[in-house]
Amino acid sequence: MNILIAIDSFKGSLTSAEAGKAAAAGICAANPNAEIEVVPLADGGEGTVEALVQATGGEFVRIQVTGPLGDPVEAAYGILGDGTTAVIEIAEACGLPLIPEADRNPLKATSYGVGELILDAVSRGARSLIVGLGGSATNDAGVGMLQALGCRFLDGAGEEVPRGGAALSAIRSVDVSALHPDIKDLDIQVACDVNNPLHGEQGAAYIYGPQKGATPEMVKELDSGLRNFAEVVKVELGKDIQEIPGAGAAGGLGAAFAGLLDAELRSGIELILDTIKLEDKVKKADFVITGEGRMDAQSSMGKTAMGVAALAKKHSVPVIALAGSVSEEAAELNRLGVTAYFSILQEVVSLDEAMNPDTAGRNLRTTAEQIFRLIGYSSKP
Amino acid sequence: MNILIAIDSFKGSLTSAEAGKAAAAGICAANPNAEIEVVPLADGGEGTVEALVQATGGEFVRIQVTGPLGDPVEAAYGILGDGTTAVIEIAEACGLPLIPEADRNPLKATSYGVGELILDAVSRGARSLIVGLGGSATNDAGVGMLQALGCRFLDGAGEEVPRGGAALSAIRSVDVSALHPDIKDLDIQVACDVNNPLHGEQGAAYIYGPQKGATPEMVKELDSGLRNFAEVVKVELGKDIQEIPGAGAAGGLGAAFAGLLDAELRSGIELILDTIKLEDKVKKADFVITGEGRMDAQSSMGKTAMGVAALAKKHSVPVIALAGSVSEEAAELNRLGVTAYFSILQEVVSLDEAMNPDTAGRNLRTTAEQIFRLIGYSSKP
Repeated sequence: MNILIAIDSFKGSLTSAEAGKAAAAGICAANPNAEIEVVPLADGGEGTVEALVQATGGEFVRIQVTGPLGDPVEAAYGILGDGTTAVIEIAEACGLPLIPEADRNPLKATSYGVGELILDAVSRGARSLIVGLGGSATNDAGVGMLQALGCRFLDGAGEEVPRGGAALSAIRSVDVSALHPDIKDLDIQVACDVNNPLHGEQGAAYIYGPQKGATPEMVKELDSGLRNFAEVVKVELGKDIQEIPGAGAAGGLGAAFAGLLDAELRSGIELILDTIKLEDKVKKADFVITGEGRMDAQSSMGKTAMGVAALAKKHSVPVIALAGSVSEEAAELNRLGVTAYFSILQEVVSLDEAMNPDTAGRNLRTTAEQIFRLIGYSSKP
Repeated sequence: MNILIAIDSFKGSLTSAEAGKAAAAGICAANPNAEIEVVPLADGGEGTVEALVQATGGEFVRIQVTGPLGDPVEAAYGILGDGTTAVIEIAEACGLPLIPEADRNPLKATSYGVGELILDAVSRGARSLIVGLGGSATNDAGVGMLQALGCRFLDGAGEEVPRGGAALSAIRSVDVSALHPDIKDLDIQVACDVNNPLHGEQGAAYIYGPQKGATPEMVKELDSGLRNFAEVVKVELGKDIQEIPGAGAAGGLGAAFAGLLDAELRSGIELILDTIKLEDKVKKADFVITGEGRMDAQSSMGKTAMGVAALAKKHSVPVIALAGSVSEEAAELNRLGVTAYFSILQEVVSLDEAMNPDTAGRNLRTTAEQIFRLIGYSSKP
């Protein structure tokens, strides 16, 4: 029996890999002959590098890059098992957690380190790049990243503008001729699950500025800088980056990737599932196990687990969903193609106890074991 | 697919019949073609009459009998579907709940009404009798019951002794010649899960007297009465009722049934499972569902659910156990023959909420449905 385990993280309790391991232990106890593959999942947000490196047998690279406020930071990225695909999370180079709350200021924060990560990956032979956009502290339209990659952004006096969101208003011309040659051939795919335009009321500054430390006045200044940047790019390069869906993601890094580096912005989970070739694995499986911490009223199941379930449904492979908690509305899951779903709870306990990693891991293991004891019996001739 | 549901009550939450109905609803949702039989269970204690009447398609009889302190009480008993087997719970005629706490006094309380219940059943054609012994307020060695059935218990002056435990010490002779003739041919089986002798430190008075309202002095008096009764019976009838295992059950009703009415004292659950012919039903089932409120460290599963599981194991029918709560030690269940067990909990809630009948019923239904969705898939060719 061929079993594929692809469970999303149980947020605050188990990582995707830990959840997968617990389920595998349970299945193995019920059926020691089962061939079990555990594929850690991610959705393009936190944990994407780790999940893809683990899923493909790749490796981690740790280097020093320019942090969001100019100080050096240690950043990790991944080279996947194929040796030619790099995966980065921009938060490693310019993420909010890198700056103490009191110092957060998107007028100053730069995405320069993201460019350095990309250059390092290219220097190690990367020909494809996967980018997770979540958690940036910046609102610089990716100008910092582009500067690191060789582009020049000049003010009215022909001088290179400084780093940070405040400088966008000063840009009068763009020079992309010095873009690092390897970047031109780099295939870039970006996990992006928001559709915000670059500027305006739904743009990067208004929607995401406040959570990055911007006051209402700063938001206005940042938005005006993004508008100026979009206009200069339109005039100089003939590209309309404002309306690209997702242009406003990660303080405008979406616009930089899609508009100036010809990257493709894609649904995070689709991109991840493609990258790990999950569909091929699903096709070969007799059972698929997915799940997540909570299957509730909002969406019954998150995009990640639902993505796995959709692939299983497509290939008529039975899919079992396991969750720490299952709301009444989860019945919808059956209609969406989930063969059966189970809560892993075993006893009445507090939320803290239920989310304790030891408890959750043990419960997941027990539930998986009992399910496969049942399957083992039911499938006997 | 033939599915037998025989779930113990979820104590404090769902009766056996309610639990069975909820599981049946879930299975039906997963597999509308399943042939489902729900058998309510009992263990010889409270709920035995109801469970047996429901399981066999029998009927209830309600009559007025002499209560434990002599006042009339309304008592119900059952005639099973065969029309010739009656089932009574002695607590209906002489149970503790019939007496306000302040008035409880086993020196006075009599089992007379139990005899009246039996006479009524016989008058309606009963040829077999099943008796549940739990919850008596009496300590009269069943003398009251025997008096109602025609036996005579005389003091030194040749007078009939009065009712109640205090009178046992006065008995000097026993006359069973006037026993109602139909009683002599009555096949009586008694559900009895204790092994106490009639008198002594492990006897009825010392072990159960205090919970019936006896003070230490009363316990001594009651015990001495039981000893006298046993000695008189030995001399007069040549029967040693003291050492019958279970003689001390229900204030000595065990001794009266086994010693003077030739009844068989049996494990409650075995007697019930025999009566409802559960083994025949198990043999015909493709799956057996059992369970109870809590499967925990003590015994993993209670006698009732375990009895069902044992029959399933005997006939190699897969058995699934469902519980409101499952402790870590429940893994033992798999070794005892339970194919798979599941907690019905769906979300982190308080014990009160988990035991709310609506919640518990819904969770049981959901769990059963998901299990049979899985089975439906797994068993496809």
